[in-house]
Amino acid sequence: MKIVVDAMGGDYAPQAVIAGVIEALHELKADIVLIGRSYDIRSELKKYQYDCARLDIIDAPEVVEMHEGAIASLRKKRNSSISLGVKLLKDKGYDAFISAGNTGAVVAASTIHLGMLPGVERPAIGVIIPTLKGFSFMTDMGANTEPKPEHLLQWALMARVYVKEVMGIANPTVGLLNIGEEEGKGTVFAQDAYKLMQDHLPSFIGNLEANEVYTGKSDCIICDGFVGNIVLKVSEGLAESVGTLIKREVKKSPLAMLGAFLMSPTMKHIKKKADYSEYGGAPLLGVDGLVMISHGRSSPKAIKNAIRAAEREIEHKILPIMQEEIAKEKIV
Amino acid sequence: MKIVVDAMGGDYAPQAVIAGVIEALHELKADIVLIGRSYDIRSELKKYQYDCARLDIIDAPEVVEMHEGAIASLRKKRNSSISLGVKLLKDKGYDAFISAGNTGAVVAASTIHLGMLPGVERPAIGVIIPTLKGFSFMTDMGANTEPKPEHLLQWALMARVYVKEVMGIANPTVGLLNIGEEEGKGTVFAQDAYKLMQDHLPSFIGNLEANEVYTGKSDCIICDGFVGNIVLKVSEGLAESVGTLIKREVKKSPLAMLGAFLMSPTMKHIKKKADYSEYGGAPLLGVDGLVMISHGRSSPKAIKNAIRAAEREIEHKILPIMQEEIAKEKIV
Repeated sequence: MKIVVDAMGGDYAPQAVIAGVIEALHELKADIVLIGRSYDIRSELKKYQYDCARLDIIDAPEVVEMHEGAIASLRKKRNSSISLGVKLLKDKGYDAFISAGNTGAVVAASTIHLGMLPGVERPAIGVIIPTLKGFSFMTDMGANTEPKPEHLLQWALMARVYVKEVMGIANPTVGLLNIGEEEGKGTVFAQDAYKLMQDHLPSFIGNLEANEVYTGKSDCIICDGFVGNIVLKVSEGLAESVGTLIKREVKKSPLAMLGAFLMSPTMKHIKKKADYSEYGGAPLLGVDGLVMISHGRSSPKAIKNAIRAAEREIEHKILPIMQEEIAKEKIV
Repeated sequence: MKIVVDAMGGDYAPQAVIAGVIEALHELKADIVLIGRSYDIRSELKKYQYDCARLDIIDAPEVVEMHEGAIASLRKKRNSSISLGVKLLKDKGYDAFISAGNTGAVVAASTIHLGMLPGVERPAIGVIIPTLKGFSFMTDMGANTEPKPEHLLQWALMARVYVKEVMGIANPTVGLLNIGEEEGKGTVFAQDAYKLMQDHLPSFIGNLEANEVYTGKSDCIICDGFVGNIVLKVSEGLAESVGTLIKREVKKSPLAMLGAFLMSPTMKHIKKKADYSEYGGAPLLGVDGLVMISHGRSSPKAIKNAIRAAEREIEHKILPIMQEEIAKEKIV
C-alpha cells in the first residue's frame, strides 16, 4: 500500500512531517509518497537514513497557507501539494492522502477532485476523543456548519463503519448531540435528525447531552460542524485554562509545588491519554477516497500515527463497506 | 426591597432554599417572600431563628416538577410557586423573583406573565463564568435555541448593561461565539449577527472562538441557546470526567496520592473559584421584571448568592437602563 503525505502541511512543515514519515518508514508497512516542494523535501531528507525504495517524492510547487480561503486557494493554486495530492487518489496506485495543512482546502479539494461516495451528499470530519471508557468518535468537526438532517444520518452510518473497522468496537452505539435527553428536545433540525436516526440506525441510543461527551456513553457522537467545532475548541480551551490556573496557584505554595512534582508522572500519563497526537488524524468521511486531516500543530508522532490509522483504513477496506451501509438505507 | 424566592424549586427544595434564605436574612438587606406550600415552608422554618418581620410566606399549593413540560405545566398548574411567584413582580411591592426550579417553566411563566421589555423580542439566560482574567458573562444558555440575528444583538445590549452595572466592569467588550476569528466565518446566521453587532455595538470585538471562552478575552460572550447549552454542559462534563480520571490514576501510586494530598488546598481554592454557587443564579434577560434562575442543585450558599445578585440588580436599576440602551438602537 502507498500513502501520500502532504510535506507542506501544518505549522511545523516540512520538518515535523518528514520526521514523522521517517518514523513511519521504520515502524510501519506502508510505502510513502511525499508531495510538496521537492527541493525543500530533499534537503530535509538529507538528515535521515531510510529505505529509499519505500519513499517517493512528487513535486508540487505551490503551497496553500494555513489561513488562506479554501475555495480561492483551489482556484489560484492548482499545483499545490493539497490539490495534486488529493488528485493522486484517483489513480489506482495511491491508497490514502494525509495533510496537516489548511483544513478547508483539504475538504474542498477532496470534495471537488474525488467526488462523494454514492448516496452521501456532504463530507464530514471525524475525530477520535478519549473518554472514561476508552474512545469515542465524534463527527462533524467543522466540514459542514449547516447540514440537513439526512446528512447527519449519512455521517452516522459512516461513523459506525469507522468505529467498527478501524477502532475495533463490535456494535457501536450512536448518540445525537442535543440539549436534552428526551425525544422532541432541541431545534427542529435536531428533532428531524432524531426521527431519521431512530428509523435507520439499529444502535441509536437517542439524544446525548454535552456533559456525556467524555463519559463514553456513546461510541459515535453525531452533530453539525458548527457545534462539533465548538465542543472541540471549548474543551481544548478549558483544559488549557485550567492548566494555566493550576500552575499559577501552585506557585504560591511550596507544599503544593512538592505535591505537583509528586503527581507529575500520573499527570503526564493522563495527558498522554488525552493527547491528539496519539490518534494522529481526523478522517474526512463521505468523499470517494481515504483522506486524513491532521492537526495543524502535528508533531512527528502525530504524523506517524495518522499514517498508522490510514493503514488500518486501507486494510479494513472501509470505503466499500461504507458504500454498502449507505446503499442499504437508501436515504437520499 | 423585597425579593420573592421559590421555596419549592430545585433538587433539594425546600430545605436548601430555606437554609439559603435564612443565611441571606442574616447577611443581606433584602426582605424575603417565600412562595410555595406554606405548610412545608412553615415546618421547615421551625428549625431556624430569624427576624419574622423581614420574611413573608405566600401560599402556592402546586409544584412544577423538574422535568415537566414547561408550557403544559403553566396550563395545568396555575397555582404553582413559579406562576404565582412571577406574577407577584407585576405588583410594585415585589422587586425580583428567584427560582432553582424547572428552567423552562420559569422562562415560559416570565415571558407570558411579565411580557418583554419594549424592543426585546425573545428572552435569554445569562451565566457568569470564571476566566483566567476574572469573570465573563455568557448568553443565551438555553432559553432560545433558534433565535434570529436581531435577538443576539438585543441580548448583547442587555448583557453589556448587566456586566457594567452588576459585575462592575466599566466598558464591557462583546464577542460573538463563532467557529473562526475572521469576519465571514460560520453559518449565515452567525455572519448576519456579526454585521448587526458591528453596526450597533461600540465595544464589539468580533468573533470569539470557543477556545477563548475561558481566557477572559471578551467580557460578554453571545451565542444562541443551543450552542450556549452545549458549551456549559461540555465544560461541566469535561471537568467531571478529568476529575474522575485523575482520582482513578492517582490511586495507583502512593507518591501521587501524597502529591494530591499536598495539592488539595490549592485545588480546593481553584474549585471554589469555578464554583457556580459563588455567583448564585443566572439572570433571565429580556422579560419585564427581574427574574433569576438558580441551578437545580443549588446549595444554601448558591441561593444566598442569588439573592445577593438580585439585590445588586435592584440597586443598580438595570431594567430601565437596559430599556434605554435597547431604545437607543431601535433594532426591531
